Amino acid sequence: MSCKTIQAAEIATGHIEELKKPISSRGISPKLVGFLANDDPAAAKYAEWTAKSCQETGVTFELRECKREDLENKIITANEDPSVHGIMVYYPVFGNRQDQYIQNVVDVAKDVEGLSHRYVYNMYHNIRFLDKEQTKKCIIPCTPLAIIKVMEHVGVYNPVLPHGNRLYGRVISIINRSEIVGRPLAALLANDGAKVYSIDINGVEEFTRGSGLKLKKHEVHETNLTTEDVIPMSDVVITGVPSKSYKLSNKLLRDGVITINFSSFQNFEDSVSEKASIFVPSVGKVTIAMLQRNLLRLYDYQTTNPETN
Amino acid sequence: MSCKTIQAAEIATGHIEELKKPISSRGISPKLVGFLANDDPAAAKYAEWTAKSCQETGVTFELRECKREDLENKIITANEDPSVHGIMVYYPVFGNRQDQYIQNVVDVAKDVEGLSHRYVYNMYHNIRFLDKEQTKKCIIPCTPLAIIKVMEHVGVYNPVLPHGNRLYGRVISIINRSEIVGRPLAALLANDGAKVYSIDINGVEEFTRGSGLKLKKHEVHETNLTTEDVIPMSDVVITGVPSKSYKLSNKLLRDGVITINFSSFQNFEDSVSEKASIFVPSVGKVTIAMLQRNLLRLYDYQTTNPETN
Repeated sequence: MSCKTIQAAEIATGHIEELKKPISSRGISPKLVGFLANDDPAAAKYAEWTAKSCQETGVTFELRECKREDLENKIITANEDPSVHGIMVYYPVFGNRQDQYIQNVVDVAKDVEGLSHRYVYNMYHNIRFLDKEQTKKCIIPCTPLAIIKVMEHVGVYNPVLPHGNRLYGRVISIINRSEIVGRPLAALLANDGAKVYSIDINGVEEFTRGSGLKLKKHEVHETNLTTEDVIPMSDVVITGVPSKSYKLSNKLLRDGVITINFSSFQNFEDSVSEKASIFVPSVGKVTIAMLQRNLLRLYDYQTTNPETN
Repeated sequence: MSCKTIQAAEIATGHIEELKKPISSRGISPKLVGFLANDDPAAAKYAEWTAKSCQETGVTFELRECKREDLENKIITANEDPSVHGIMVYYPVFGNRQDQYIQNVVDVAKDVEGLSHRYVYNMYHNIRFLDKEQTKKCIIPCTPLAIIKVMEHVGVYNPVLPHGNRLYGRVISIINRSEIVGRPLAALLANDGAKVYSIDINGVEEFTRGSGLKLKKHEVHETNLTTEDVIPMSDVVITGVPSKSYKLSNKLLRDGVITINFSSFQNFEDSVSEKASIFVPSVGKVTIAMLQRNLLRLYDYQTTNPETN
């Protein structure tokens, strides 16, 4: 009965400080362009937060609003503009697979969100670098990365265990298996040693670390388990259901569970604090910090070897 | 009242003959691998037709059935196997955006369906070659290509007009705006000079040829028009609604319209022959011929410059 609620802003603070220092001491001003082509108030809010956070760190943020039918051409213009170092898009735009097409129109070298196929594929296959010379690290999809940072902050990762296995022994349920967050997150957590139940309306899949020669890639198994089976077994429950009406029943949660919500709607019941030991109601501000971390990395790759970009 | 119904098999015949000759005279045996990872009877039927057609042309076809969680690894194995020249997948597999991820796992050099982002992007931008030296033509997505071949066969393309503008004056409605068929088809037809109404549950978009400097790329405009507005104006109506119950009202069709259905369900009413001048009830067998045409092309690229593949 003593749940600790931790806000994303608090978790983001340390990461923001880590960004401010090099940007200020090096006297640089990496430029991030955000494209807003929908009229989703959540996206506008997120853009506003991004602008504020960038102002704090010293990143130049430019919001470009456009009609969705003009978006592709505007991204291509930004791809070709050497003064732009990073590009992001506020999704959903079309709300269907055309959004995935758009994700791949963003130049890999400027993709701060890490949503282009090359980054997603490399993430699933634990390929850490873009190039053979290992000079350019791959970008990890932003929201999954932010959730990992949240989990590190709240002590889910055990630093006593070796790197790459710090979730060993943890059972984690994720209610969302989107290509943008849920599925990559499940793979990343499995690669770090957790047993992950990935839940969506079609069922429950189990993600675990590969063994033996397959150690480097997670394994996925379809199960006959239900949400009611797996939530009570979970040390950590992460929700991302894009619906105002969806609420995960508090009764399913085990005592002392760690709960994290990344949906823009609150997926846990108000009474979650009666069960959880830790509750993180949102992650957006951590995501914004990670966007800028990725931007700084891409900035360096572009400016160190400009001829190869 | 004298509608001509033309079967896909009849349209495919000429294309199949064109494939048989070079395969036989050159004594080659290009190998196509098809992955079946769903239990959709329509997919199994399509695989069966593919096997039969390949037997006729001399293409080696191998159907590999697997569980969907094993599909990605099996595709990677085929990507790396030099004895495999072309790869296709019977979709839907996951039925969500993970299918689009899978499309991009297929090696571009072996992608007979033309569904990887690189081909799709190049198609939208009228980029005809993969390489600067213009030795490797891009693959056009298979079903849209098949529908174009159907339209050439039934006289929608006017050979009196110059290449690239042979649909000038035509008004064409397409009921389907999927990333696999409807949207690319709309762009291709607009690039050939048609005015295209692209219809899905979210509304009607108008695709037209770009003008002036933008001539090389289609333009898209959202409209307030409805299906009821645009179907009566259309010279050609193409349907691809994946639903058994969907039927386009015969009353909307103008007299003498050309009708083409690419859904595995029949989207026109039985009485369509009372309105249409030409009715093509399916295109699958033409698609299979196009798959093999693409395979032959990719075979040549792989075997001519094996070190670059």
